[in-house]
Amino acid sequence: MTVHSGPVVESRPEPVRPDARRLLGIDFGGTKMAVAVADAQGRILRSERVPTYAGRGAGQALDRALELAGRLVSDAGGSLAAAGIASPGVVRDDGIDLAPNVPGWERLRLADAVRAALPVSVVEVGNDLNAAALAELRLGALRDADPGLVVGLGTGVATALTVGGSVVAGHRGAAGEIAYAVTGAHWPAVPHDTMLEAVFSGRALDLLAAELGMSGGAAELCRHAERPGPARDALLVRVDELARHLATCCLLVDPRRVVLVGGVARNDLVRGLLADRLTAVLPHRPDVVLSTFADDAALLGAVTMAGEAMAAHR
Amino acid sequence: MTVHSGPVVESRPEPVRPDARRLLGIDFGGTKMAVAVADAQGRILRSERVPTYAGRGAGQALDRALELAGRLVSDAGGSLAAAGIASPGVVRDDGIDLAPNVPGWERLRLADAVRAALPVSVVEVGNDLNAAALAELRLGALRDADPGLVVGLGTGVATALTVGGSVVAGHRGAAGEIAYAVTGAHWPAVPHDTMLEAVFSGRALDLLAAELGMSGGAAELCRHAERPGPARDALLVRVDELARHLATCCLLVDPRRVVLVGGVARNDLVRGLLADRLTAVLPHRPDVVLSTFADDAALLGAVTMAGEAMAAHR
Repeated sequence: MTVHSGPVVESRPEPVRPDARRLLGIDFGGTKMAVAVADAQGRILRSERVPTYAGRGAGQALDRALELAGRLVSDAGGSLAAAGIASPGVVRDDGIDLAPNVPGWERLRLADAVRAALPVSVVEVGNDLNAAALAELRLGALRDADPGLVVGLGTGVATALTVGGSVVAGHRGAAGEIAYAVTGAHWPAVPHDTMLEAVFSGRALDLLAAELGMSGGAAELCRHAERPGPARDALLVRVDELARHLATCCLLVDPRRVVLVGGVARNDLVRGLLADRLTAVLPHRPDVVLSTFADDAALLGAVTMAGEAMAAHR
Repeated sequence: MTVHSGPVVESRPEPVRPDARRLLGIDFGGTKMAVAVADAQGRILRSERVPTYAGRGAGQALDRALELAGRLVSDAGGSLAAAGIASPGVVRDDGIDLAPNVPGWERLRLADAVRAALPVSVVEVGNDLNAAALAELRLGALRDADPGLVVGLGTGVATALTVGGSVVAGHRGAAGEIAYAVTGAHWPAVPHDTMLEAVFSGRALDLLAAELGMSGGAAELCRHAERPGPARDALLVRVDELARHLATCCLLVDPRRVVLVGGVARNDLVRGLLADRLTAVLPHRPDVVLSTFADDAALLGAVTMAGEAMAAHR
């Protein structure tokens, strides 16, 4: 099946047949949650985005997302054939590893919760950046590019690898979690003391901005960094560290294309600095492009997961 | 087909039929070159290893290897069905990139040279560590491990990635060339000034040993490093840098198993230090094992390439 990223709500003058098959996609993020209902061809019929309120815990976030999903499914009409759920971390049936941004998230059983709340049995769960990579593979910048590397620069930092038309999951579903990469000149005495996510991520840049006396977070930092000065100097050190690890990833894989997704990736300065650094050191240079899906890569990936799960269960 | 790594010369009392199919494998290295002739099932019938004499240039090395191959093919009897050739660098039909250790190597047309010198038309060429990874996939430590990461610590440093039963070649055949990874705390003013191969590789450790007044190269350095002192301190800095990049590779791929090959990898101290560091920082820890093929992983891979090429051309 093919998912089309078009207008959010299509005009549908004719009445919906009750047996028209629908796909549900949910993208859980540390800041926002997005829900979409699509037809069996993946065309988005309804979609909505709500805040996560991470500090209030996992339970309320999941409840609100499922309530929203129920409403959108009902509005769209038809019959829910499959759901695809994207979440940060390593998503297992009985919990989620490496997703520290929402308290309690690690104990969620996402597939069970979806099946309990909604009239659907085919539920596929997976990592959010892997979902984004699936969207890039099927609909986006990686359709004609193999291997492909997706770099997520949002609240956190992560990667996803595509080889031969599939997203590489890894032995324990943990492929791509470069947040744990070791930075700095010295090996850390405490294992995760110098992890990449604390050096380069939306949150890390927010903290850096605050340290430099700015109240506007990463966005303000990047604006100041366009001119020479302390903000630029500080940002360059962080970009250098990220670029070093992405260079190693590119050397390992020799990707045809690197796709950047997430809020921080949309900053032209950050993207330009990263591309310059990769170009300088890689003997074989991949294209470095911005995802065309804005904030929706993982959501479109979740709908794609639902579509592929529906096809597999037919 | 299956390649067996057994005794180098089998006893063959019965006379060889002239149409018995034979496979040729050649592994070109910066220090040594190895040639093997196998039967159609990949059982090694003849094999020999000779020095490369890299400083004398690519031409003489290639000539001697092909002469040796001709002699072994003739000794083994039968008819040559296919050849597999492994070489450092990115092997193309019209030359070889990123193989700086033998002057003139970059201009070689390996497949053409083999076809001109030997009675064989099916010739497969490829990177030596990718060949080693193929041997691990079909015969060795990666038979039951997906994804897999092979780390070559010989004269140079390189990696190879296996996903879903295949070696990932990369868009331009350059996957795995982490020799070019960026080391140190600062981004280099000159792009390849701080490349990983100059920090951790057989050659880099030989140079480090010489700097510390030792005449016995990397091996002597590693012996001294077993006790506290300047050799150990210096080696640890180098191991830390390699471990940092391998950690990033592991985070990207989440391999089930990491296989170390090459002369430096056989040093217990180096291997132990690397495994400790990966264990300390990776949330999902792969097995870290030594290849069981000693120096022969790439040679067995070359024979395997020949066998798979023969099967594909039948």
